Amino acid sequence: MRIGFIGLGAMGLPMAGHLVAAGHQVSVASRGRDPIEKAVALGAQERPPADMAAEAEIVVLCVPSSPQVEEVLDAMVANLGAGTIVVDCSTIDPEVERRCHRRVEEAGGRYLDAPISGGTIGAERGTLTVMVGGEAEVLEAARPALEPFSGLIVHVGGPGMGQVVKLCNNVVYAAQLQGMAEATAMAVKAGVDPAQLLEVLLHSTGDCVAVRTRLPVPGVLPDSPATNGWRPGFMVDLMAKDLDLALTHAAKSGVPLAATAVARQVLAAAATAGYGREDCSAVAKVVFGLAGIG
Amino acid sequence: MRIGFIGLGAMGLPMAGHLVAAGHQVSVASRGRDPIEKAVALGAQERPPADMAAEAEIVVLCVPSSPQVEEVLDAMVANLGAGTIVVDCSTIDPEVERRCHRRVEEAGGRYLDAPISGGTIGAERGTLTVMVGGEAEVLEAARPALEPFSGLIVHVGGPGMGQVVKLCNNVVYAAQLQGMAEATAMAVKAGVDPAQLLEVLLHSTGDCVAVRTRLPVPGVLPDSPATNGWRPGFMVDLMAKDLDLALTHAAKSGVPLAATAVARQVLAAAATAGYGREDCSAVAKVVFGLAGIG
Amino acid sequence: MRIGFIGLGAMGLPMAGHLVAAGHQVSVASRGRDPIEKAVALGAQERPPADMAAEAEIVVLCVPSSPQVEEVLDAMVANLGAGTIVVDCSTIDPEVERRCHRRVEEAGGRYLDAPISGGTIGAERGTLTVMVGGEAEVLEAARPALEPFSGLIVHVGGPGMGQVVKLCNNVVYAAQLQGMAEATAMAVKAGVDPAQLLEVLLHSTGDCVAVRTRLPVPGVLPDSPATNGWRPGFMVDLMAKDLDLALTHAAKSGVPLAATAVARQVLAAAATAGYGREDCSAVAKVVFGLAGIG
Amino acid sequence: MRIGFIGLGAMGLPMAGHLVAAGHQVSVASRGRDPIEKAVALGAQERPPADMAAEAEIVVLCVPSSPQVEEVLDAMVANLGAGTIVVDCSTIDPEVERRCHRRVEEAGGRYLDAPISGGTIGAERGTLTVMVGGEAEVLEAARPALEPFSGLIVHVGGPGMGQVVKLCNNVVYAAQLQGMAEATAMAVKAGVDPAQLLEVLLHSTGDCVAVRTRLPVPGVLPDSPATNGWRPGFMVDLMAKDLDLALTHAAKSGVPLAATAVARQVLAAAATAGYGREDCSAVAKVVFGLAGIG
Repeated sequence: MRIGFIGLGAMGLPMAGHLVAAGHQVSVASRGRDPIEKAVALGAQERPPADMAAEAEIVVLCVPSSPQVEEVLDAMVANLGAGTIVVDCSTIDPEVERRCHRRVEEAGGRYLDAPISGGTIGAERGTLTVMVGGEAEVLEAARPALEPFSGLIVHVGGPGMGQVVKLCNNVVYAAQLQGMAEATAMAVKAGVDPAQLLEVLLHSTGDCVAVRTRLPVPGVLPDSPATNGWRPGFMVDLMAKDLDLALTHAAKSGVPLAATAVARQVLAAAATAGYGREDCSAVAKVVFGLAGIG
Repeated sequence: MRIGFIGLGAMGLPMAGHLVAAGHQVSVASRGRDPIEKAVALGAQERPPADMAAEAEIVVLCVPSSPQVEEVLDAMVANLGAGTIVVDCSTIDPEVERRCHRRVEEAGGRYLDAPISGGTIGAERGTLTVMVGGEAEVLEAARPALEPFSGLIVHVGGPGMGQVVKLCNNVVYAAQLQGMAEATAMAVKAGVDPAQLLEVLLHSTGDCVAVRTRLPVPGVLPDSPATNGWRPGFMVDLMAKDLDLALTHAAKSGVPLAATAVARQVLAAAATAGYGREDCSAVAKVVFGLAGIG
Repeated sequence: MRIGFIGLGAMGLPMAGHLVAAGHQVSVASRGRDPIEKAVALGAQERPPADMAAEAEIVVLCVPSSPQVEEVLDAMVANLGAGTIVVDCSTIDPEVERRCHRRVEEAGGRYLDAPISGGTIGAERGTLTVMVGGEAEVLEAARPALEPFSGLIVHVGGPGMGQVVKLCNNVVYAAQLQGMAEATAMAVKAGVDPAQLLEVLLHSTGDCVAVRTRLPVPGVLPDSPATNGWRPGFMVDLMAKDLDLALTHAAKSGVPLAATAVARQVLAAAATAGYGREDCSAVAKVVFGLAGIG
Repeated sequence: MRIGFIGLGAMGLPMAGHLVAAGHQVSVASRGRDPIEKAVALGAQERPPADMAAEAEIVVLCVPSSPQVEEVLDAMVANLGAGTIVVDCSTIDPEVERRCHRRVEEAGGRYLDAPISGGTIGAERGTLTVMVGGEAEVLEAARPALEPFSGLIVHVGGPGMGQVVKLCNNVVYAAQLQGMAEATAMAVKAGVDPAQLLEVLLHSTGDCVAVRTRLPVPGVLPDSPATNGWRPGFMVDLMAKDLDLALTHAAKSGVPLAATAVARQVLAAAATAGYGREDCSAVAKVVFGLAGIG
């Protein structure tokens, strides 16, 4: 298939690579030169979004936030081929996403929201979980453009519902990260060996993805951000953005999120401390600081 | 070995059963008649704690909270055989536990704090995780009394450190439960099918023990408390007690636990709503209520 | 002076009345017919915003939120007389307000942000506190249009700073309201007579505007919203909007607001419970509900 | 009257001084030599608590917390003269206080809980607010021992209710302090002159005792702790203790206190940062630190 891919960040570049490897004819667009050259080296072609809109059967977006999605649509809608499917893998506001659905449909295209979970590792391995909002038949038509980078594709509802589920996932994950930060601070301050803390948590009710991949003490997990200079992974600033989306959506729909609201404020403190572009597990550094550790 | 077991609750009874099944000579004491008769039917003998203190090589305690542990020691210390090991599997205040260590040692015995994780299912299957505080050689001597009901035994430090790690685990778990409650409320209010939410969370960063075992919507997980009339599992009142221990310990040691403090208040609301003896996942009913669901 | 006044809500109508009473030539615009007729009866003239822009020396805005301010400017900028002063008494996002400053200045006018505190009672009595952002000389020129409804005018800084200070005030007030709700729930549940609670709080460190004007039990304060069917005063939905502005501004500027974030979530629960258009002291009904009172 | 006074801290010493000045025959006991000598210099006599129990008509306690109250009673009950009134001005757990009531009554005495608000300034000026729990006729008999240091005495209910109301007051005050800290951080970070912030808050809904006496920027209020090296006033550690009492009482009685729980954690961070013995307004230093100010 002719597939366009817009947004070659830490997630997008390996995702586009999987599409090339699956035999698709892939055209790419992105802000930086460097990722475009890497994608071209893998076998993709560079094309502006307006041309993709006319030429591709499916265009996948993987950009940082709502304004960029809308900007890309600005460039595409006038040229959009009849029935062309736009698949938005970005994490954005569900309400904005529903507007994007309508806009593309009014231009004669079809649309899916398809945010992803699994991080850069999942993107590289092609094992992302994709949560899809939109019509079932559009998803069936778009599957060839999703399967090469996915381990699981779940159709969770109509327009915008993929985004809602993604925000739900990140609400749970933010709680794990904050709880882990508080627990680890308590353990370290008491003199517990964090490696033993980890072993217990992995085999107790505390077990969760945050603990398994990001226990926030350097040297405990070889591949964790903490061990690798807090390199993301998934940045503090992006988690903060996603919680803002969740809190805004929840406020509009009348769902109070007390723990999420608190976790959001710790992310704010982390950004202020200069950890905004570090991995989200760096919230632990804020909690450690307040606890007088280190 | 001659092993005493005090406290035949939902956890203690199957744990004592495993000790009998492993071939130990087990004597038991508990508040209710019913569990004692069940333990006797399995092959245990009923004995008062004071006699266990004199006769057993190891006495295991599994009681609800600090006052009961101290009460049991009141009954035992005068009679305690030289070198008898008391193993406290209860979850109690680390500072009280350190006092218990000293008290038993002054009476000529040896002591371990050995709180457990794994719930009633882990107790029944004999796969509990045990986090041990105390001396390594005491743990070695006590292993035969722990292994029959354990899947993993981790020596995490000196006196009281088992309790600290247990509290750390429950801090992480309480955060999972609260985050899950908020996310599920958001999903359900938006009209997401909770079974699809579950499938996504299980394969995304939201994956955690809370989601795997307790997604708080009836009918989604066959064995979850929600599906079984919110029957515990692990009660709201016990989780509240454990967070009180964590918050008290953390306050004394100078570790602020903001998200834990919020989760504690939702547990208070759950207890007030009459869910105190239901499973801790019933905090979701409070969040659902605030969100106008149901 | 020739003064335009746009937005005749519960605040705006009495403010415009004071301008008429002070001898100014006042033209008005608003969404509803009813308040316009009331203002005309007081001696004002109805005029569309575009005409005010051309004819008035000063135009005062008092509308619900950012989009309405921008909409009014849309109607005015093309016609704006040279040097005309636009004074925005609405509470809106400081960043949007700075944009409004620039927009009016580029159109040849002058601008002040001048949000107000004091509620409907302050508006009726002409004793509002005005916190002004913008240039000192513009404030001097605009004073005649502010003094008739003000008890105090404070110049707090450049463009947008009036809004920042207003948000600061509401952060303190929201904390008072939430603390008062929690304290009153605790007192009422313990059986304390709320009139005695009030007497103590008024003469202790608990004394604050929230307690003095809004103790949230019907019948305790004759003029409180609680005693008058929770009629606002200042609505839950408006306080929620202002805290959203504060949280957004604080997140951008790197200031974590943990207690404000929690208060915001209780306001969300209040709105969901149907109290959105009741007085903000109705958050106490949420807390009382969680406490099993009433 | 013959009045005993136990506990000559920053509050107790001036209170005892007022009793002497009112013409009572005052005996005193306290831990430190220095305050005893000061009280003796004012005209009091030093006596051990056991002797006061036998000799005084009324004994006033003003000690830091529950254990000290119980210790003092240990020393007094055996000697207690028939009908002697013990008045506890300390802030302690309402449940413990009810136990103290019973204990003194069983020993033939009478008891009041009478915690106070007004700080060291109120103690020095003799304008404290006293919230009294116990029987009305006991209060009438004890009035001569309260009035010399009180501006207002409110009988708020039976045994322990004085303590409940005191905790309610401090819940409101802690919310004021936390809201003020967040607002001031936001203002300072935006470049607002804190003196102008103060002027606005004093004349807006943000007005409260915290703002009037403790705006947490040095130099703004001449008599504030911030201006005087954060010297208390009312210490962080004592406010933390009082919130612990409030949270414990509320948990037992089923009242969730979400904002109070968060404020408590910021106090923990303040103590860890070394501000435990500074004025409670020093929580602002934690918030400022998280906001990257200073």
